[in-house]
Amino acid sequence: MASDSTDEHVDGIVRRLGEMGLSGHTSKGAERTVIGVIGVGFPNELPEIIEVMPGVDHVARITKSWKHASREFKPTDTIVKVRDVEIGGNELVVMAGPCSVESREQVLETAHAVKAAGARIMRGGAFKPRTSPYSFQGLGEKGLELLAEAREQTGLPIITEVMEPGDVSLVAAYSDILQIGARNMQNFPLLKEAGRSQKPVMLKRGMAGTIDEWLNAAEYIMSEKNFQVILCERGIRTFETMVRNTLDLSAVPVVKRLSHLPVVADPSHGTGKWYLVKPLALASLAVGAHGLIVEVHPNPDAALSDGPQSLTLESFASMMDGLRTLAEPLERIVAPGTSRVPAAFAQVAV
Amino acid sequence: MASDSTDEHVDGIVRRLGEMGLSGHTSKGAERTVIGVIGVGFPNELPEIIEVMPGVDHVARITKSWKHASREFKPTDTIVKVRDVEIGGNELVVMAGPCSVESREQVLETAHAVKAAGARIMRGGAFKPRTSPYSFQGLGEKGLELLAEAREQTGLPIITEVMEPGDVSLVAAYSDILQIGARNMQNFPLLKEAGRSQKPVMLKRGMAGTIDEWLNAAEYIMSEKNFQVILCERGIRTFETMVRNTLDLSAVPVVKRLSHLPVVADPSHGTGKWYLVKPLALASLAVGAHGLIVEVHPNPDAALSDGPQSLTLESFASMMDGLRTLAEPLERIVAPGTSRVPAAFAQVAV
Amino acid sequence: MASDSTDEHVDGIVRRLGEMGLSGHTSKGAERTVIGVIGVGFPNELPEIIEVMPGVDHVARITKSWKHASREFKPTDTIVKVRDVEIGGNELVVMAGPCSVESREQVLETAHAVKAAGARIMRGGAFKPRTSPYSFQGLGEKGLELLAEAREQTGLPIITEVMEPGDVSLVAAYSDILQIGARNMQNFPLLKEAGRSQKPVMLKRGMAGTIDEWLNAAEYIMSEKNFQVILCERGIRTFETMVRNTLDLSAVPVVKRLSHLPVVADPSHGTGKWYLVKPLALASLAVGAHGLIVEVHPNPDAALSDGPQSLTLESFASMMDGLRTLAEPLERIVAPGTSRVPAAFAQVAV
Amino acid sequence: MASDSTDEHVDGIVRRLGEMGLSGHTSKGAERTVIGVIGVGFPNELPEIIEVMPGVDHVARITKSWKHASREFKPTDTIVKVRDVEIGGNELVVMAGPCSVESREQVLETAHAVKAAGARIMRGGAFKPRTSPYSFQGLGEKGLELLAEAREQTGLPIITEVMEPGDVSLVAAYSDILQIGARNMQNFPLLKEAGRSQKPVMLKRGMAGTIDEWLNAAEYIMSEKNFQVILCERGIRTFETMVRNTLDLSAVPVVKRLSHLPVVADPSHGTGKWYLVKPLALASLAVGAHGLIVEVHPNPDAALSDGPQSLTLESFASMMDGLRTLAEPLERIVAPGTSRVPAAFAQVAV
Repeated sequence: MASDSTDEHVDGIVRRLGEMGLSGHTSKGAERTVIGVIGVGFPNELPEIIEVMPGVDHVARITKSWKHASREFKPTDTIVKVRDVEIGGNELVVMAGPCSVESREQVLETAHAVKAAGARIMRGGAFKPRTSPYSFQGLGEKGLELLAEAREQTGLPIITEVMEPGDVSLVAAYSDILQIGARNMQNFPLLKEAGRSQKPVMLKRGMAGTIDEWLNAAEYIMSEKNFQVILCERGIRTFETMVRNTLDLSAVPVVKRLSHLPVVADPSHGTGKWYLVKPLALASLAVGAHGLIVEVHPNPDAALSDGPQSLTLESFASMMDGLRTLAEPLERIVAPGTSRVPAAFAQVAV
Repeated sequence: MASDSTDEHVDGIVRRLGEMGLSGHTSKGAERTVIGVIGVGFPNELPEIIEVMPGVDHVARITKSWKHASREFKPTDTIVKVRDVEIGGNELVVMAGPCSVESREQVLETAHAVKAAGARIMRGGAFKPRTSPYSFQGLGEKGLELLAEAREQTGLPIITEVMEPGDVSLVAAYSDILQIGARNMQNFPLLKEAGRSQKPVMLKRGMAGTIDEWLNAAEYIMSEKNFQVILCERGIRTFETMVRNTLDLSAVPVVKRLSHLPVVADPSHGTGKWYLVKPLALASLAVGAHGLIVEVHPNPDAALSDGPQSLTLESFASMMDGLRTLAEPLERIVAPGTSRVPAAFAQVAV
Repeated sequence: MASDSTDEHVDGIVRRLGEMGLSGHTSKGAERTVIGVIGVGFPNELPEIIEVMPGVDHVARITKSWKHASREFKPTDTIVKVRDVEIGGNELVVMAGPCSVESREQVLETAHAVKAAGARIMRGGAFKPRTSPYSFQGLGEKGLELLAEAREQTGLPIITEVMEPGDVSLVAAYSDILQIGARNMQNFPLLKEAGRSQKPVMLKRGMAGTIDEWLNAAEYIMSEKNFQVILCERGIRTFETMVRNTLDLSAVPVVKRLSHLPVVADPSHGTGKWYLVKPLALASLAVGAHGLIVEVHPNPDAALSDGPQSLTLESFASMMDGLRTLAEPLERIVAPGTSRVPAAFAQVAV
Repeated sequence: MASDSTDEHVDGIVRRLGEMGLSGHTSKGAERTVIGVIGVGFPNELPEIIEVMPGVDHVARITKSWKHASREFKPTDTIVKVRDVEIGGNELVVMAGPCSVESREQVLETAHAVKAAGARIMRGGAFKPRTSPYSFQGLGEKGLELLAEAREQTGLPIITEVMEPGDVSLVAAYSDILQIGARNMQNFPLLKEAGRSQKPVMLKRGMAGTIDEWLNAAEYIMSEKNFQVILCERGIRTFETMVRNTLDLSAVPVVKRLSHLPVVADPSHGTGKWYLVKPLALASLAVGAHGLIVEVHPNPDAALSDGPQSLTLESFASMMDGLRTLAEPLERIVAPGTSRVPAAFAQVAV
């Protein structure tokens, strides 16, 4: 309460709380009176409702609004199983592939190469969220078919983005994991529909999203009884212009402390520069990420989207070698692979 | 080009541009070589594609990626007509109503009161985007029906939010203006569907959105041949914790310089505190906004959402009086109204 | 306390508080235990000290760390008197002049012109904080002498920036108000030395400073028994690139609610574009600012610093006319002036 | 130029450039005319001066304003030598000690323990920048004496912060490295005075500072012919409230690409939570940092400042063990040490 609040003010608050079925405990000090409210199930708006009442100085919330995503609800780590791959355990699971699916040749070439280098999951965008309506928007269902063909040839499960509720069933019919992009972190109808699909969902953090909002977004998926949620740190917007985004690696251990859900890092979008991907991938492993999602393109200069942040097949293999070297002292596992790009693809690498 | 770039590097860039159907003009200085590319229709990715090529130091884009929204495309102000109301002209159009539609009584009471005070459009949320899945999510179609009843009784056109592409036709059947919320500024399927509806659309700026991204989002709607777009500045996220958002009033004259579209301000979400709404509303008028959208609730303390930022019926009438006083020296118009709340509602006001 | 905290944890916290001379009141609820600490003079670090103790889930601070600056300490508005000018009362006090003092002619021409248009205080930089060491750094003491001459000729009090503790006595010998720039908001030795000078101090908000930090910075000055402090909102850094800074006009009413100190706005640095100065100046008046500080230059294109955000003499006079028109309905006063630039200066205006 | 610019506009720009001793090269395209300016030594303000001239649409700067700090000026890595320690080479140099020097016992105990664990440099604050004037401000010169005694006993060079130009010679008399804090990144008089001291200087990045501003700040030191500059990434301010700051690890490889100066990371201030220090320290090594600066306190709960982010002696030793394990596969060196805290200190560790 404000230092000039009166007993009437205090009574007013306590009465208002009572009307909402809550009880307020009043403590009077020499300079201040504090009213505490303890209980379950009170409305998220409570702090703001009380804050503007007469005599109130400040309201502070102490409990969180997300539940199923919290470690208190489930103390043990969640392992998300995707075919034979387990995300959330001791293995650093690397997902790799092109930003956008562009052609059959591009997808297949990349799929074989990333598998050879140790990737466990194939990524590729068929529906692309682009700032401008005049940018390439993705191949749509044709792209999904190409990804499915890549899975058939390589055995790699696939992950791809879904952008609207009406597309969830289509994308879920092809993809092993549904990806929700950063711009859609708070697209609540999409989160609910993805939850209903009962497919594993990878939820990217929004560009200016807090960890609390991110876990609330995960809660939207989980409130539909879908607990197969993977969180993905992909960089936040900051004042720095020399990177596209600032990869927030502290989010990895923070989320692991607060939540049982697996958390992976995206050093490609998280930096926007191919030459920063390897150092940040190593740092992501060091900080404890459960996995990585990385853009790889056989010919980044010609990519229809995000070329500048894509690794070549050779530099991807080099990154994987670095991860394997680092995994051992950290007692983590990275799938074996060869740093040699398969002969057929060698000529395109930088 | 970097200071240690070679002629081969320069040739490489020029050749790459040529492959993309562009021509590069090379200027050599004492310390630097600069390659300029002039033309139309080149890909948005161009700067990033070139930036990572060997020998390149830096790429700077000079042209914009939005077109129909620009003043260069249409030099004269766009007026969006909604029944008998014109947004974008000399009148400051005030839209007012509750954050969420909660009950018939609440909507009708508010509608009559805001009309009496000079509001020209009725606002109210039937579908609510909420951070937590456990917060009140709105009444849905029932809320739309109540808004339509309020329009019938008062003659005020209505504006309400639509959150997903699949709901656009439903919401468009009831509402005079479709509102796209801040979290959906880059929900591209929703923007396109709202564009196809051919209804006027009010597009809120995203919490961390730049003006360039906002105009690109408007371009998504306009690329569907729907030019009835109103932009709404509703506050951006900053480090300041004493307000919910920071209302960026400089955005109003910046947008008016860059675009022909009308721009309105939302001092309720833009501050999150009812006691800041009136001063920021006056400032919005002073800075040149074409309109305001304001939250009003007959009993803010009991509101199911955003109570703390809602005006009472009386304080709304006081704000309208203030706006009328200020409008005259600015040569703007604010609809007449009475500062007296209709008798039936007077007892609920603070 | 965390939901899995034990009685030992609670006892540990209470014991630790006791060692610090504080007493903790424990409230046990169905799901949570909360420990409240009420008192005066406890260390600022308290929340962080407790937060990492075993069993603790979260700590929330309820009281503020600044005292003399608060309205609770002094409920009535502070009026800062500078010669015959009062800042903090009903008059909107306009301070105007060039960003940098460049020459005798420039300063005197500007001083006469801004006085004629209604400015009450002359501004001008003699010591300039510049991002690059190779930019013009100001004329130093020579600049102070020129400002003093301008005061002698026009009677306008002067305000100029001081950048280091060792310069405070020199600058105080010439200037009527000491200005602390945004980059120095948390230059604590400078704040203390400015406090000791017993001169009025105008304290600009830091580029990423919160209102709480700003008031704490004011407290540094006031802790030296100098209560003549003026706060200046000058724009904060945001993601928007179309303006140099984002003028946070909501800070004006927020500060007026929390503190008794006068608050002025700087629409020149606050936007960085001359064509935004007038609309934002009008908005600053509408939102309740006690004053404005504006950059004016007889020939902005040739200015040695911040030319792009400076008004010409003519556009300054036009802004003053606009302010006068708007002041009346707001029951504020703006000093009279003429919109005609004195003949000798007319040729330089745009 | 704007699409509606005229030949007169173009001529005006070219003439204005000519007055400034620069030459503009005009390229005309189908839709746009572009004027390029190539040369050396043109003013930093140039883009902003030109941007507001008639007919101009946009100005883009291509060259940087810092010179001595750039890799183009000096392609090879700078090694800063401090007694027998080399910063900037293959060794990961760990600097450790308490946030504030509090007592002789605390400093000496910490110094012996961190040396035993492998630290190469002792840190400790004698002059403390604190948000509130009522927080502990440091022991001043007494603190410097205690640090010097710790150096004498352990042989570890010391680093400590200097907050104002007038203190530089005093601090330089005791300390091996001068530390410039985040709040002082743009305290230009302090930077210049630190430069003149000819002591090695560690320059922390400002809370909202860009890499470009940071390198310009380093340039201030180097413009005084002091090239012994170490850059320190210490976390930037973001919207995230679960950490005190967000450690920007991408800044490490970005700076190493742009500049020859060594760059170290501060995971203590960079996160504000002791339990995040070890994971972020490992990540800093993985991303290529030349060193670390870490807060260690024999009894963090009782620390007079920043207790919550300080490691105990034991957890520091554990962090050092982790770094040594990780250093090998990265082909880096970390000084040997023991994970056993010396007997005399063991009882205080958690």
